[in-house]
Amino acid sequence: MARIAIIGLGLIGGSLGLALKQSRLRDVELVGYSRSRKTREKARRAGAIDTIAPDPASAVRDAAIVIIATPILTIRQMMEEIAPALPQDCTVTDVGSTKADVMRWAEEILPQHVSFVGGHPMAGKEQTGIDAAEAGLFEGKTYCIVPSPTARETAVNSVVGLAGLVKAVPVYMDAEEHDSYVAAVSHLPLVVSTALFSLARDSLAWPEMSQLASSGFRDVTRLASGSPEMSHDICRTNRENLVHWLNRMAQELLKYRDLIQGGDDEELLKAFARIQLERDVFIARGAQRREERAAATEPGISITDLLVGDWAGRRAREMMKGLEQESRRKDKRNGDHGRKR
Amino acid sequence: MARIAIIGLGLIGGSLGLALKQSRLRDVELVGYSRSRKTREKARRAGAIDTIAPDPASAVRDAAIVIIATPILTIRQMMEEIAPALPQDCTVTDVGSTKADVMRWAEEILPQHVSFVGGHPMAGKEQTGIDAAEAGLFEGKTYCIVPSPTARETAVNSVVGLAGLVKAVPVYMDAEEHDSYVAAVSHLPLVVSTALFSLARDSLAWPEMSQLASSGFRDVTRLASGSPEMSHDICRTNRENLVHWLNRMAQELLKYRDLIQGGDDEELLKAFARIQLERDVFIARGAQRREERAAATEPGISITDLLVGDWAGRRAREMMKGLEQESRRKDKRNGDHGRKR
Repeated sequence: MARIAIIGLGLIGGSLGLALKQSRLRDVELVGYSRSRKTREKARRAGAIDTIAPDPASAVRDAAIVIIATPILTIRQMMEEIAPALPQDCTVTDVGSTKADVMRWAEEILPQHVSFVGGHPMAGKEQTGIDAAEAGLFEGKTYCIVPSPTARETAVNSVVGLAGLVKAVPVYMDAEEHDSYVAAVSHLPLVVSTALFSLARDSLAWPEMSQLASSGFRDVTRLASGSPEMSHDICRTNRENLVHWLNRMAQELLKYRDLIQGGDDEELLKAFARIQLERDVFIARGAQRREERAAATEPGISITDLLVGDWAGRRAREMMKGLEQESRRKDKRNGDHGRKR
Repeated sequence: MARIAIIGLGLIGGSLGLALKQSRLRDVELVGYSRSRKTREKARRAGAIDTIAPDPASAVRDAAIVIIATPILTIRQMMEEIAPALPQDCTVTDVGSTKADVMRWAEEILPQHVSFVGGHPMAGKEQTGIDAAEAGLFEGKTYCIVPSPTARETAVNSVVGLAGLVKAVPVYMDAEEHDSYVAAVSHLPLVVSTALFSLARDSLAWPEMSQLASSGFRDVTRLASGSPEMSHDICRTNRENLVHWLNRMAQELLKYRDLIQGGDDEELLKAFARIQLERDVFIARGAQRREERAAATEPGISITDLLVGDWAGRRAREMMKGLEQESRRKDKRNGDHGRKR
């Protein structure tokens, strides 16, 4: 029996626990810790963990894998608390929305005898906390894997294996790539959604306007209802990239303004038609990937397989190959259009 | 037996037909016309209309109420086609997303013996066409009623009655108010959604980025998948208002950029927390209104009731009173905050 420790039992930590319990992983004990006693107990009752640890250090003692699933700005402090208690050769990972700061903290704080492999499952919803946790949260979603330079290969394979066990699709990248990509497709949408809501809400005509706000407005502003702490932490740890993309988004809006103001109807229609088509392709490809992932069956695996990592490494290599092939096919298809406006 | 004519049998026209058939309206024949023979036949098979008309003029002959549910830029031409055939005292309405142009066309083109009452149900989805039509599309949604200055009171009441029959909530406003409000809460979100998708899609890193794009990106860019023709028509008929709001949105994004760049963490956290709270209030109020509307039962009414309009007038006055009271309560609650940044 080996131990996996989950520190932080909110939406992501709780869902990871539930997903691992429903996975084919055998002979493992999930130990959980949350600052809130209520959350810890809820997580155990919900079956997200087997055992409650009274503090972070006890949670990681004897753990083969430690998953830090706290808010980003708490990760640093959590690393400090667990560092002295981490067993030899332990694999430590996290689920934070940005990676450059986290990788720096790991290098600074964690002992050299452990391997840190940053992680970021691209899954979420606006509800937070253990009550919103669900085993299927990661199904078919991309799981970013950001190994530290000193991480052992088996440790990297273990985290890739974890991602596979919760039915996510692991994708390797470095911290800078990760932060610049998520700035565009995750953090920019968050701020755009928030700014759109605040602009309308702060208008003097809001009492009348809000009666006309329908499902379109609701969907586009959905991310404005996310956790303020998480939004704040994201802005703070990914500031430069986000500022870059906010500038570009403001420019993009003014491009559309000029197009609308310019009065070239055919050009306007073509712009909307191109984007509709591109988005349909994007949505269809995502659905296909999720279906393929859901259909894939994994053999029952033991914690030893996971820790030795051969199984996961093999599986990961197959997956990466598939993704690379898909990416090449895509590049080929898109070679002659799509990158100009 | 009286006639209601529906010209244009797409998502909105088809859904209106289905909703009216499921309503408590008695003794009425729904006559439908669509340019596409396939659509006309689908609409009849789906039960959205009783009878197919071979052309717009035949559809409106003997009709007590005519609903023009074509794309906005086709409305003008449709008015020209039906004008000579419209019976004395007929009520004509539309469902276009902008109202100022439509009201102008009606004044210019329709004969003086009919009453034009502009309409705009605030309901939609990104799928279009008769296949996407559903009877419940309007349930609890706001239905804007924009009477022309010369419309008879009974005609206004009839359109208010129609809105009630499809379980929408009728709200009176003038065309300029309507167009400025929908510019902010419907057309701006459409362009923001499209611009966000095009910005990411046109990035050189899109092949990698798109793998990290999760449900947040998908939701915020959903409107980019709407009908390009409709988006184009909206931009063309609501140009000035939309340009105004695009400028304000670009400024709002730069405000957030400054807030994020500025490094005052508490202010940033407070901004996100305020918007989260405000949006929760907005969502809860919408859900409450929909529930109230769904729970309201209507007596079975005859087409005569609808046309004489007393029933609808009474019902509408009750509804408007309720909405005004709610609006006053809201203003009172929000009196000391919320409109400043």
